[in-house]
Amino acid sequence: MTLTGNLTIGANEVPAIEGTMKALNPATNQLIEPDFALGGMADVNQAAMLADEAFDHYSHTSLTRRAAFLECIADNLDAVRHELAARAALETGLPEAQLEGEAVKAATQFRQFAAVVRKGRFLQLAIDPAQPHRQPRPRMDHRLQKMAIGPVAIFGASNFPISYSVAGGDTASALAAGATVIVKAHNAHPGASEIQARAIRKAVQENGLPEGVFSMVRGIGNTIGEALVDHPLIKAVTFTGSEHGGMALYRRAQLRPDPIPVFTEMTSVNPTFILPHALAERGAQIGAGFIERMLVNVGQACLRPAILFAIKGAGFEALRAAMAKGVTEASARTMLTPGIHASYLSGLGAMESVGANRIAEGSRANADFDGQSVLHEVDGQRFLTETVLAQEVFGPSALLVNVKDEDELLVVARSLKGQLSAAMHLDERDMPLAHRMLPVLERRTGRIVVNAFAHPQEVTFATIHGGPFPATSDSRFTSVGMTSIERFLRPVSYQGFPDALLPETLREFDPLGLPRLVDGQ
Amino acid sequence: MTLTGNLTIGANEVPAIEGTMKALNPATNQLIEPDFALGGMADVNQAAMLADEAFDHYSHTSLTRRAAFLECIADNLDAVRHELAARAALETGLPEAQLEGEAVKAATQFRQFAAVVRKGRFLQLAIDPAQPHRQPRPRMDHRLQKMAIGPVAIFGASNFPISYSVAGGDTASALAAGATVIVKAHNAHPGASEIQARAIRKAVQENGLPEGVFSMVRGIGNTIGEALVDHPLIKAVTFTGSEHGGMALYRRAQLRPDPIPVFTEMTSVNPTFILPHALAERGAQIGAGFIERMLVNVGQACLRPAILFAIKGAGFEALRAAMAKGVTEASARTMLTPGIHASYLSGLGAMESVGANRIAEGSRANADFDGQSVLHEVDGQRFLTETVLAQEVFGPSALLVNVKDEDELLVVARSLKGQLSAAMHLDERDMPLAHRMLPVLERRTGRIVVNAFAHPQEVTFATIHGGPFPATSDSRFTSVGMTSIERFLRPVSYQGFPDALLPETLREFDPLGLPRLVDGQ
Repeated sequence: MTLTGNLTIGANEVPAIEGTMKALNPATNQLIEPDFALGGMADVNQAAMLADEAFDHYSHTSLTRRAAFLECIADNLDAVRHELAARAALETGLPEAQLEGEAVKAATQFRQFAAVVRKGRFLQLAIDPAQPHRQPRPRMDHRLQKMAIGPVAIFGASNFPISYSVAGGDTASALAAGATVIVKAHNAHPGASEIQARAIRKAVQENGLPEGVFSMVRGIGNTIGEALVDHPLIKAVTFTGSEHGGMALYRRAQLRPDPIPVFTEMTSVNPTFILPHALAERGAQIGAGFIERMLVNVGQACLRPAILFAIKGAGFEALRAAMAKGVTEASARTMLTPGIHASYLSGLGAMESVGANRIAEGSRANADFDGQSVLHEVDGQRFLTETVLAQEVFGPSALLVNVKDEDELLVVARSLKGQLSAAMHLDERDMPLAHRMLPVLERRTGRIVVNAFAHPQEVTFATIHGGPFPATSDSRFTSVGMTSIERFLRPVSYQGFPDALLPETLREFDPLGLPRLVDGQ
Repeated sequence: MTLTGNLTIGANEVPAIEGTMKALNPATNQLIEPDFALGGMADVNQAAMLADEAFDHYSHTSLTRRAAFLECIADNLDAVRHELAARAALETGLPEAQLEGEAVKAATQFRQFAAVVRKGRFLQLAIDPAQPHRQPRPRMDHRLQKMAIGPVAIFGASNFPISYSVAGGDTASALAAGATVIVKAHNAHPGASEIQARAIRKAVQENGLPEGVFSMVRGIGNTIGEALVDHPLIKAVTFTGSEHGGMALYRRAQLRPDPIPVFTEMTSVNPTFILPHALAERGAQIGAGFIERMLVNVGQACLRPAILFAIKGAGFEALRAAMAKGVTEASARTMLTPGIHASYLSGLGAMESVGANRIAEGSRANADFDGQSVLHEVDGQRFLTETVLAQEVFGPSALLVNVKDEDELLVVARSLKGQLSAAMHLDERDMPLAHRMLPVLERRTGRIVVNAFAHPQEVTFATIHGGPFPATSDSRFTSVGMTSIERFLRPVSYQGFPDALLPETLREFDPLGLPRLVDGQ
């Protein structure tokens, strides 16, 4: 496939109106061809108008038709898997085999959402039938279903350039909900973005859907993103990235005359707690496992376990030694972008300026943007005093916090802000302490893992990739998993409707056989 | 029951720290005994700390125990029904019989939510069992349930001083979710608020729950409300009232270091569309019905049908005449507060300043705060030009908009902002036009009613009292009905848990028999 570098505005490839940019190969620090178009307000406006025009049609597509469309996107992604992975590898420095896996995952997500659409449970159909003889007044017939909230703007992630980018989980769940979508492509992988956008646009055409169902824009700086968030026709936003970037968009959207929901997935240190008996039994094994997972994606994963808490005692030295060994043996590898690399270095400096002891480090960088792995240690009191130590340092960095006893373990757990995940490693004899820890973790995280690590992520019905602030901007939703569709749905109640005017899903003669709650049963 | 005028901070009655106030009888413009305590930051802080302390315990109560608590509140409300209605009538000018009905409705809501709690569907239990032999890597066991978001601040409504006030639907649904609650009592009915708060506090004690499950504060001006919204231990807010007040709280909460969800139910003109054949057949009947519903609660209801759109043609004169007759025959009645009365007069003035023709009015006021009923008329072009005409004038005011044809009817419908409800009156022959109208209304409203009016409200599973901005601040939720509980719930996923550490609801041996989604089935 030849990359044109154009934007995707509905059915059209649109050239630059605000100049062009090139992708950077972070492994070589060289720019890569071709030029990619930078769009402006006119592109955002055109995409938003098309998304709005397409909305009534697309949001009312039958479940069968919508599911077929999602499956067609999956097929189109499969067809370009190799060139997509190859281009993404060039643009991110991530291994091509891993990116092939991401492409498979992206296609799988579209197929999983097709199944969710077909089953129709997400519509949350409910019927409270008329009670014409009820006293003191009759009850009218009430019927409810959910529909899409409106056109959605999606800001793709930099660190998973396929499965959480243009054709990632946000796009799949929004399209499944019946929302029309405008993606703001991440500038760190413009070629991979174009390949994904074409796969979706092709599916729109092959399924005879209105062109405004999907567009993709790109721009330098914040202007195009702000224009999207400000646009009156955009009704929801999702974002994956830094707390700084996410909160800027979030707060901007809340200042609109009509605030709109913005779901941002931002930051998490995914705290890991080693309970004493587990530590005594298998401290070395847990320490090695922790560092192995910490290093995935050069530490550039939202589920990276970054901070490990353990009580000094039996097994602690083995834990520390295993962690140090894992870090020492790790090679420096290319980070995603020069900006991420610079932030990583300054994050390490901030930790050390407040007394974090560097107890191990991996091999030094060979190239400009290689991330050297580092392990720091502090004690519980310092961790509680220096709040900067609880902040995420995006990259291959781990912090070991030695605490003095169970009570201090609970105190440090209570000091944490919201997280995407937390993990406890425990043995049978640790259960009393685990029961004390559990409510503390439940209030602070969207997912709790026992005797394992949060990464990698399953995409299932019980998956939650969310959590209290600052992990996300709204703890009531998830950005990964089958329930992530709920971000884009709102209920509509139909009261006293003649059957022929009802949506097909709610008619008395029910040809679809979808699950419906009748009178609460 | 003797009113003490104290605040309810957990188990304690707390006297004033910021002075006192008296209730006003709006029918006589006289102050009523006793003095009511005004609280300050210290009260908010104490209530928030208690609510936070009580949270872990209360949010983990068994469903059986929580349901029994809600039913106890219902019983306690029943026991004080007569004195509650009598005091509320004094403080609001609303008829005592109507307020008895509100007290019954409030108790019923607690019983309905008790049933919702027992059924456990709101937990949205989901289990994705382990797949130890899956390739290329095993799947761990994942289990999900929803839990309460944290302590919730509730701002009661002025216009329904029982069923949407201290012991109203917000409190019932938040307590059902497992959230602890702090109510900011509305100063328009402090005595009715105290009676309700006591009924809830008594139930907390009778059920052996921690005192922080419920508190009620009161203050003058915005200070106490702002302190609640700003308090770091408060994790969600609900508000029912004006767009101005609601948006001030909403925007304030979004400026917190950690923004929190604020569900505000604010404003709606509940547009009513009379389709041509229905108009020709029964214009007079619809017009009379519209005015009857418009006048409920002296026009001080969020579901008041305020604007009626009809195409000039057969039946239009009969419609207009019936509306004019209904308004002319209406007596002026006491409005809730002097402030609401003043806003009503200025709203009428604003309409007339942009050319709304006063075509009928009811009897003139006998007392200071009586609201005179008024009917205005404009044509579709003026309605489209003067956007102030689409704004809610809270009180007994109706606006008839005559439009020239079907296309103009669609244009005025598209011009509307978000609404709580819309109604269409139609005959069989109007179905083609109704099908054109439907997607326009679906995008703009939470509820669509056919051949009836939105008020009164059912509280059922298919009830939606919500809608796009400015009807509410988040169209994805409702403030009335069984699904209003969702505002206060967030998911937590448990991964790889030993059975004994899981919440009882998610254990492998399932003694509760609650609905659980297993592998998406």
